[in-house]
Amino acid sequence: MRHELITSVQNPLVKRLHQLLDRKGREEQNRFLVEGAHLVEEALNSGAGVVTVLYDEQREIDPACLRAIEKRQTEIEVVAVSAAVLAKLTETKNPQGIVAEVKKNTRDWQEWMESAANRDYMLLLLDEIQDPGNLGTILRTAEAAGVDGVVLGAGSVDLYNGKVIRSTMGALFRLAVFVRPLPEAIQKVRQQGGRILVSSLKENSLAYHEAAYGGKVALVIGNEGRGVSTQVADLADSYVHIPLYGRAESLNAAVAAGILVYEAQRHRTFPPAN
Amino acid sequence: MRHELITSVQNPLVKRLHQLLDRKGREEQNRFLVEGAHLVEEALNSGAGVVTVLYDEQREIDPACLRAIEKRQTEIEVVAVSAAVLAKLTETKNPQGIVAEVKKNTRDWQEWMESAANRDYMLLLLDEIQDPGNLGTILRTAEAAGVDGVVLGAGSVDLYNGKVIRSTMGALFRLAVFVRPLPEAIQKVRQQGGRILVSSLKENSLAYHEAAYGGKVALVIGNEGRGVSTQVADLADSYVHIPLYGRAESLNAAVAAGILVYEAQRHRTFPPAN
Repeated sequence: MRHELITSVQNPLVKRLHQLLDRKGREEQNRFLVEGAHLVEEALNSGAGVVTVLYDEQREIDPACLRAIEKRQTEIEVVAVSAAVLAKLTETKNPQGIVAEVKKNTRDWQEWMESAANRDYMLLLLDEIQDPGNLGTILRTAEAAGVDGVVLGAGSVDLYNGKVIRSTMGALFRLAVFVRPLPEAIQKVRQQGGRILVSSLKENSLAYHEAAYGGKVALVIGNEGRGVSTQVADLADSYVHIPLYGRAESLNAAVAAGILVYEAQRHRTFPPAN
Repeated sequence: MRHELITSVQNPLVKRLHQLLDRKGREEQNRFLVEGAHLVEEALNSGAGVVTVLYDEQREIDPACLRAIEKRQTEIEVVAVSAAVLAKLTETKNPQGIVAEVKKNTRDWQEWMESAANRDYMLLLLDEIQDPGNLGTILRTAEAAGVDGVVLGAGSVDLYNGKVIRSTMGALFRLAVFVRPLPEAIQKVRQQGGRILVSSLKENSLAYHEAAYGGKVALVIGNEGRGVSTQVADLADSYVHIPLYGRAESLNAAVAAGILVYEAQRHRTFPPAN
């Protein structure tokens, strides 16, 4: 723990951390910011690479978050700051008085896939998801549904965007998420004998409840407006779609992902009779 | 069509319409605003009670929206305004240059229920949903899933909130939505021999795929944080829940609603074998 109070937004630590509010800064430093007591607590308790915790010295730290800080206090730096400094490092209208600097996830994709070679798995592959709220909600839902891992392809919103992280409700820290080109991930799944199911309204697409989801499987969900890109869709073993009974043109991407991953998990857990 | 240009934000029409950005104004005038070419077009084409369309005189009107305006031009007033006036009447960062004043839906609940007395239906009942994006996405999903009607209970975010309307992607204009106290709606469904399924994590709650969804049925979804209120939950015939396989504490309300209504519709359309 460090006890000197930082009150200047010109402080070098504050200036460096402020850069993490932008994707460029996050990519340069390979770190990101997490705000709010609940998410900071999740980051600490899940063993994420928390480097620094900054808290508003005028406010009480949430007790559960404080316990999480104390458990890891030998590894992390804890810094009291003024409300103005905290405001400089947060994006929400009502910041909760605490923010953490966290190292990006360094889980190794090749290693993870090797370790999974001899068991079944369900992966969720995301192709060019653009909306941070959608991406965060999809990760939250994937974790709840027991998805084994998520692969975020090229051209997506930044995984470490503040709104993505807030929308995950902490799932980001509990889920295996990899940033990889989807064609590469698909090739690896196929090498292991897995099947690729692509969400698509193509003519030969199966209604989502008719598909087979057992064994090793990768489900691919596409961009909010355009769906899965042709390059990725062409790599599918089969196509699935969610029927639209009304006059709606589409479902929200997070809702569609939720319906698909839950259906897949249900088939895996309670295989259909036929 | 009216051709005089309005450039003053002090114009009486502009001042009156500006009040529709607040719930109070919407309740006093019984009207609401819809912004953007796609939603204005949907409102016009679905026969909603459009009163006035205002467009930025410096910008082209989207061709499909213009056709929808022309089809109803004898009933509505079309007014050219300055960009400043339009900005005064819109909430989004990049307004699309067009906004419509629309009368609130006047569909009669008693009449709708009487007309449904001799057929099956699936209603979705929403208890104290707070987030406008969630409510709009739930309505969008309900319409896509072929839900026959939605009842919004007391204590919810305003159905005519701008963000709700934008998140529905037009479903608000195509779906039968009623604002009624849920206990009253539940009593009516039960009088007609319908069953009430409440989403809940109670001990005796069925996994969502094990429930029976045929006949007349009302599915109740609760508040984002607290779930369904005790008063409403006590009126259930059965409880259903979506299993959480990961360590997540909950699903996003719109995702949960999507999984439930799609499962219900699937059971209704393709009844399980057993």
